[in-house]
Amino acid sequence: MKNQKINVGIVGLGGRGAVLSNILIDQADINVVAVCDVYEDRQLAIAEKIKSKTGHMPVCTSNYRDILSMELVDAIIISTGWKQHVQIMCEAMEAGIAVGCEVGGASIEECWRLVRTYEKTGTPAMMLENCCYGRDELMLSNIVRQGVFGEVVYCGGCYQHDLRESLANGHENRHYRLDEYLYRNRENYPTHALGPIAKLLNINRGNLMLTVTSSATKSAGLHEYIVKNKGEDCALSKAEISQGDIVTTTIKCAGGENIVLTLNTTLPCPYSRGLKVCGTKGMYNEDNMSIFLDDKHNQYHMEWKNHFGNIEKYRNVYDHSIWKKMHDDGMRGEHSDIDYLVLRAFIDSLKENHKMPIDVYDMAAWMSISALSEKSLLLGGIPVAAEDFTNGRWIKRDTAEYWQYELNC
Amino acid sequence: MKNQKINVGIVGLGGRGAVLSNILIDQADINVVAVCDVYEDRQLAIAEKIKSKTGHMPVCTSNYRDILSMELVDAIIISTGWKQHVQIMCEAMEAGIAVGCEVGGASIEECWRLVRTYEKTGTPAMMLENCCYGRDELMLSNIVRQGVFGEVVYCGGCYQHDLRESLANGHENRHYRLDEYLYRNRENYPTHALGPIAKLLNINRGNLMLTVTSSATKSAGLHEYIVKNKGEDCALSKAEISQGDIVTTTIKCAGGENIVLTLNTTLPCPYSRGLKVCGTKGMYNEDNMSIFLDDKHNQYHMEWKNHFGNIEKYRNVYDHSIWKKMHDDGMRGEHSDIDYLVLRAFIDSLKENHKMPIDVYDMAAWMSISALSEKSLLLGGIPVAAEDFTNGRWIKRDTAEYWQYELNC
Repeated sequence: MKNQKINVGIVGLGGRGAVLSNILIDQADINVVAVCDVYEDRQLAIAEKIKSKTGHMPVCTSNYRDILSMELVDAIIISTGWKQHVQIMCEAMEAGIAVGCEVGGASIEECWRLVRTYEKTGTPAMMLENCCYGRDELMLSNIVRQGVFGEVVYCGGCYQHDLRESLANGHENRHYRLDEYLYRNRENYPTHALGPIAKLLNINRGNLMLTVTSSATKSAGLHEYIVKNKGEDCALSKAEISQGDIVTTTIKCAGGENIVLTLNTTLPCPYSRGLKVCGTKGMYNEDNMSIFLDDKHNQYHMEWKNHFGNIEKYRNVYDHSIWKKMHDDGMRGEHSDIDYLVLRAFIDSLKENHKMPIDVYDMAAWMSISALSEKSLLLGGIPVAAEDFTNGRWIKRDTAEYWQYELNC
Repeated sequence: MKNQKINVGIVGLGGRGAVLSNILIDQADINVVAVCDVYEDRQLAIAEKIKSKTGHMPVCTSNYRDILSMELVDAIIISTGWKQHVQIMCEAMEAGIAVGCEVGGASIEECWRLVRTYEKTGTPAMMLENCCYGRDELMLSNIVRQGVFGEVVYCGGCYQHDLRESLANGHENRHYRLDEYLYRNRENYPTHALGPIAKLLNINRGNLMLTVTSSATKSAGLHEYIVKNKGEDCALSKAEISQGDIVTTTIKCAGGENIVLTLNTTLPCPYSRGLKVCGTKGMYNEDNMSIFLDDKHNQYHMEWKNHFGNIEKYRNVYDHSIWKKMHDDGMRGEHSDIDYLVLRAFIDSLKENHKMPIDVYDMAAWMSISALSEKSLLLGGIPVAAEDFTNGRWIKRDTAEYWQYELNC
């Protein structure tokens, strides 16, 4: 496919689908040939954009199987709700159509199905975890791989994002996440924090996640918000919310490292992925945008606050080549740039016939944390064993072979 | 004792003992009448200071029982190593001598012995947890009690303090903590982070800590430091270190809140108590010294970094009266001021016959976290049940009665 245009179908045209579509339309080596959503207005909005840009109307459908049966489709992008991800991915792989899929959680059975379908078909599939392409996350991968932090023993990460407004209006704005909060309690959105950390710790490539332990606070924030903003008589104000406000999840790794994830989505807070990386020679703390290096910063002690934001001083040295190349290509580091980068990683890996930089084993391992944290909570907060989706191959799989795209960029 | 001078003995004259002694010597209503340490040089150093200030030489001894048998002693300050705390406290209470004791952990049996000895003797005892008197911690107690953060559901705290140098020289500098790292693995220093949080959440006064779950990383930082700084041939370089570099401990409370403690003492890092308080109307994050309020800061989203340090804007409104009074008294907010405040809290509570602001139930609950986290780790990271040292009385004990000193200051 190296010098060909790739024919892409897009399945799911809500908030994320619209963002990804707009980027895909602009790629010179992509034809968007079909779009799919259960809502017709969404299909038409994107289709009109494509037509005005290319002169061709894409196929519009409310059934993704229409796209999977199109001979000319090379790849699909899935940006539906979480619940449909694995089913559509597996059907696409069976049809020999490459898949880039948005993030979310999945059941253990779904994760295994994903892995087995890939092993049976060999069809390329990648999770479009855009946060793996954040500027700081990429920079940290340079820093860690160059040994600047020594031996890394701990990584923390958050999905700290106040979703109260979109959840409270979930039944009106087609937001699919509300049911998650009404009926379930778990680390329901692990991959933004976990994805970049799993890469730093070489999970599935010499390292493995072994156990998952979760603890949840009571649920107070969403109910209070709904009562305040929709009134006490609103049906949702009377509903019981199952999801705790903050869920803390600790993951033990084969290499002796700990990963601590914090989900915080129903309280007022600034957006943060709260990345923290601690090693024997230094640490990084996203919450104050600082890097602390042994033998260099130790003397600051109580004056550390004067060094908030010192990460800017390290951009020149450690910015990742992927990020620099994007700037050379004329992009400017907007929020949507991480979407651009993750889509380019998928497209370029497909064209170059590289292994996908976030493959089905990563997807399965990362997505399974939702189910595992729910299990831990249901059992009173005991550690539960994580699954080894590589079936022992994690010991020999190495980063050089599997992360060709990123390491050689 | 209201208008009397209080006769004090000081037991343990290492680093902390020296700091506390220097403050005590300066208090107009205190006579330091005796000092005790196993090292004679330490006794003499303090005694000479006292003599040059007052003209009187205090009793110098290496046996604290000499002090407990002195008729004129009203109170002792204990700043020995952790292992002696409870034994000395109990003997002092039995002798009718009030006790202010430095911080540390203890076994469950010791915690019960402390509580039972207090219940039998009624002798006042307080933990000298200076971090409860930190400016931000005091300010937060105002903010939380005034409902500014709404319903608080989560508190996080760290003891993030690079102790590698003092540990690596532990066998030479009389530092008693090295054995903790060689032979044990646990949240070995919980109270700096937990004390202020327990106060915010009214633990033992309408709320209770229910379960404790810990997870530890491998141990890498201290060994690497010792090899680098003492050489590979040093005996300590060959020793196996049991203590993990970072221990994460999650505590579930009766009120539905979670407390997450992080111990981080053998890696390069800035000093931080990492306090984080999250409620339904706002949050505080020590790591970037920020306060985030609902309906006020929500619009900042991605621009949050511009508001690092905004806590300074709230000092005027929310600084605690204890802190303000100290400034009026001519103190200037130096680090040692939290030691001054905690000592004054002990002395003033004793003189006014108030309940101790950190009483034996608090001490037992806070100190027991060390033992409970060790148990959880030994059992593979399962939650273990915390002890209710109040024997059910936590339900009716209220803050107004038990925190008279702080609430009325």
